[in-house]
Amino acid sequence: MTDTLNRQILLASLPDGALRTDHFRLQSAPMPRPADGQLLVKTLYLSLDAANRAWMQGATYRAAVGAGDVMPGGVLAEVVESRAEGFAPGDLVQTETGWQDYAAVPAAGLRKLPRIEPLTHLLGVYGIAGLTAYFGLLDIGRPQAGETVVVSAAAGSVGSLVGQIAKLKGATVIGIAGGQAKCDLLTREYGFDAAIDYKAGSLFKALRGVAPRGIDLYFDNVGGSVFEACLFNMAQHGRIVCCGAVSQYDGNPPPHGPRGVPGLIVTRRLRLEGFILYDHMHRADEALADLRQWVAQGLLKAPEDIVDGLENAPAGLVGLLAGENIGKRMVRVA
Amino acid sequence: MTDTLNRQILLASLPDGALRTDHFRLQSAPMPRPADGQLLVKTLYLSLDAANRAWMQGATYRAAVGAGDVMPGGVLAEVVESRAEGFAPGDLVQTETGWQDYAAVPAAGLRKLPRIEPLTHLLGVYGIAGLTAYFGLLDIGRPQAGETVVVSAAAGSVGSLVGQIAKLKGATVIGIAGGQAKCDLLTREYGFDAAIDYKAGSLFKALRGVAPRGIDLYFDNVGGSVFEACLFNMAQHGRIVCCGAVSQYDGNPPPHGPRGVPGLIVTRRLRLEGFILYDHMHRADEALADLRQWVAQGLLKAPEDIVDGLENAPAGLVGLLAGENIGKRMVRVA
Repeated sequence: MTDTLNRQILLASLPDGALRTDHFRLQSAPMPRPADGQLLVKTLYLSLDAANRAWMQGATYRAAVGAGDVMPGGVLAEVVESRAEGFAPGDLVQTETGWQDYAAVPAAGLRKLPRIEPLTHLLGVYGIAGLTAYFGLLDIGRPQAGETVVVSAAAGSVGSLVGQIAKLKGATVIGIAGGQAKCDLLTREYGFDAAIDYKAGSLFKALRGVAPRGIDLYFDNVGGSVFEACLFNMAQHGRIVCCGAVSQYDGNPPPHGPRGVPGLIVTRRLRLEGFILYDHMHRADEALADLRQWVAQGLLKAPEDIVDGLENAPAGLVGLLAGENIGKRMVRVA
Repeated sequence: MTDTLNRQILLASLPDGALRTDHFRLQSAPMPRPADGQLLVKTLYLSLDAANRAWMQGATYRAAVGAGDVMPGGVLAEVVESRAEGFAPGDLVQTETGWQDYAAVPAAGLRKLPRIEPLTHLLGVYGIAGLTAYFGLLDIGRPQAGETVVVSAAAGSVGSLVGQIAKLKGATVIGIAGGQAKCDLLTREYGFDAAIDYKAGSLFKALRGVAPRGIDLYFDNVGGSVFEACLFNMAQHGRIVCCGAVSQYDGNPPPHGPRGVPGLIVTRRLRLEGFILYDHMHRADEALADLRQWVAQGLLKAPEDIVDGLENAPAGLVGLLAGENIGKRMVRVA
């Protein structure tokens, strides 16, 4: 990195099937210059999220990513130069400026972040992942003490927090993850009551075994066959929080959905509800107060999985889609 | 019919594929005798419902129907002999004694019905169909004035009422039905704003055409490809009331569900909710007061489709599954 060049990683071509590192291309661009009302920010950490891959499938709650775009993504950045009131060099902000060293961004709407340690928590437990877990579980799912809560991608950034918060609320918590090592971690380190390796055999039967009275609340991060196995194990009047569908992102959209829709929704009187964090951001301070308190008290562990160097972001995202991370994956850029 | 014999129609064998009349068998059994606390009731009208076929697929909110069982179903019956307090010959009751002339039933839990004319309304707009439409639409769906409401099986017993009640609440109402004749009836007789023949071409495109800003509330009676076409046309924060899945009943359960689950539920922040009428019956009087007022005021039309003779119940149900009825189908037994 120099003072006059800005490294950027572009999505060079849209994947047709699984994402590979050669779908990306590194380039050097001139340093951006902030206009009036803008900030020049330097990327410190870059968030890697399964949703990054979904953005390549088409427009959703945001525009699709196209070939030739700087790869977008959530960023923890430091203000280098301010041409906007209320911001000064050294301020920390969260932006969506994506996979590059520097960016010029409008200050309007940006939130200044407190400089807490470790800074990485601002992209993890105090960032999108933590807020998603908080609002999705507590506002949409509303777990009650004594209920059986199941969460998929349970060793991931959102799932690991969802399971722990559900435990704080008095639920019995079962995690679904890929591989025995992750499952052991969930029960040993994060207090889950049980964990199931979905690659190890019939998930339907394994769930039936650990939750014989059925699932009251399923927090779904994955969709597909895991969703289906949980759906068929739901208790009457159960709820499913639809947070994401990572099993469906790395390829073309699947030709079919899970069996049992809508039949089981009727006969078991289920409620399924989707959400996007942005709709809840006006209450972020309330959530952050709880999350910080739980972390400070040692009640909530925030696993992080840090990749070094902007140039390794493509491999980091490909690996995340293959499930190799434990906790919140991010890239240390500067 | 004699005074000493009771005609019964049995499900002689479980269908493996579409239901046919030869899956049923008529037999004559001895007249049942009521024990202490029981009533001897005579079937006046028998309700035919798509759910009758679903019961043959396995246990749901009730036990499965098995080969050799008297075919179960909702019944409007008259008390012939009472061995229970509070009931006298001539009283009308609703029971689930199914496809037979007479039955002995425990009086506990039976509701006496008012003798209103036409009696058939007690099985239609004031029966399961009306109450299902009322609670499903108003409690689960909660339509707001100005919203776009879509209902499938719109010329059926529940759908025809859902559409009219949604109109009473100020919604724009689109019906989905099979065939142009039904569609014409919906707009001409029942006040629907638009109706789409799902057999006539791309339902997805037709919905896009009449609801370009998307569907706020979809009342689903059918599941399958109609569900999928509606799902892909939902507006952000839309709701889907899952009432039934008649497209899935007459055969084996389908190997796949609709596309877009759970992906679209997330990105469009949808809420899907299933319900079973029994959970709402404690509020039946409230619903019936509204329904009777609307009918009396001419605001709610209650189409009925009456088949004559118990022996024609099998053909009536097979025809209902093929969509030949308009409004509430029932069998006049006595």
